[in-house]
Amino acid sequence: MLGVDPGLTRCGIGVVDSQSGRRAQLVAVGVAMSPPDISVDQRLLLIADELDRWMDLHVPDIVAVERVFAQHNVSTVMGTAQVAGLAMVAAARRGVPVAMHTPSEVKAAVTGSGRAGKEQVQRMVANILGLAEVPKPADAADALAIAICQLWRPAALLDKAERFALTPAQKAWAAAEQAARRARGTR
Amino acid sequence: MLGVDPGLTRCGIGVVDSQSGRRAQLVAVGVAMSPPDISVDQRLLLIADELDRWMDLHVPDIVAVERVFAQHNVSTVMGTAQVAGLAMVAAARRGVPVAMHTPSEVKAAVTGSGRAGKEQVQRMVANILGLAEVPKPADAADALAIAICQLWRPAALLDKAERFALTPAQKAWAAAEQAARRARGTR
Repeated sequence: MLGVDPGLTRCGIGVVDSQSGRRAQLVAVGVAMSPPDISVDQRLLLIADELDRWMDLHVPDIVAVERVFAQHNVSTVMGTAQVAGLAMVAAARRGVPVAMHTPSEVKAAVTGSGRAGKEQVQRMVANILGLAEVPKPADAADALAIAICQLWRPAALLDKAERFALTPAQKAWAAAEQAARRARGTR
Repeated sequence: MLGVDPGLTRCGIGVVDSQSGRRAQLVAVGVAMSPPDISVDQRLLLIADELDRWMDLHVPDIVAVERVFAQHNVSTVMGTAQVAGLAMVAAARRGVPVAMHTPSEVKAAVTGSGRAGKEQVQRMVANILGLAEVPKPADAADALAIAICQLWRPAALLDKAERFALTPAQKAWAAAEQAARRARGTR
């Protein structure tokens, strides 16, 4: 899973993996950045190139992007929405399904509460991935939280299965994965 | 000049040209569309591919994009902002400068009034380009209006000249163009 916490100044990118029956593992995490003193088109290009590089390198099964809302942070929301759009197109261009999660969905998946604070989410990301320290900066940890949210959403996987017309065997596998995950108590 | 009226359902694209001392000419106009019943990432990819195709075909000197504001049309503004971002990145990737114009700047450039109605703007686009009929649909005419706005903005050209560090000779040429355009009374 490749998670994206979209932003024009700092765009968090996190990759997590999990094999059946094993805990989620950190693969890579980082932040694509663009300096605020160049034009917006050049800033967007820097971020787009970095997203392309990450997707080519890690070849994710699903790209999960934090859903941006128009109502809050009006000053930065346009750039954030545009970066989210670039992440979606980068995935779609590679035939990779895209999932969107709201901030409260991500918090609930990682901490059990949709109203958890930022620090609590970051501590849980470190706990879940078995890291000694919280990944820095916050955007990097947030991107990992989005990827974990996606990894732990078998319902979403089943939706994708339908959307991409998986075979009955693949659907059965996804259902078994879901059951096994429930039995392990990881959600 | 390639003008873009960004939109997720319909994205107007218009190309106009003008040689020194001649009126603005229509080169091509069209609308990139995406069906509302597929996922947003697939819709954005369709529009992105079409924008790439137009830019490869017409090799514009400048791409002019209508500036999107967060405050109005909250339901569609995210998709519109994302398409604007795709147009900016498509241009930046080709080394083509990007200019942004507000709707009222476009109206003022084309009709003389920043508060002109949609139909008035469209009639003027037809008049300026010497077309017997108003280009349809409205998004196509709007994209042409944005391109004309850019074509008629010598001040913007001078800004670009500075940004792209043109030579003094090129700056002098731009200033002469501006003076000639004023003398012809085209603005």
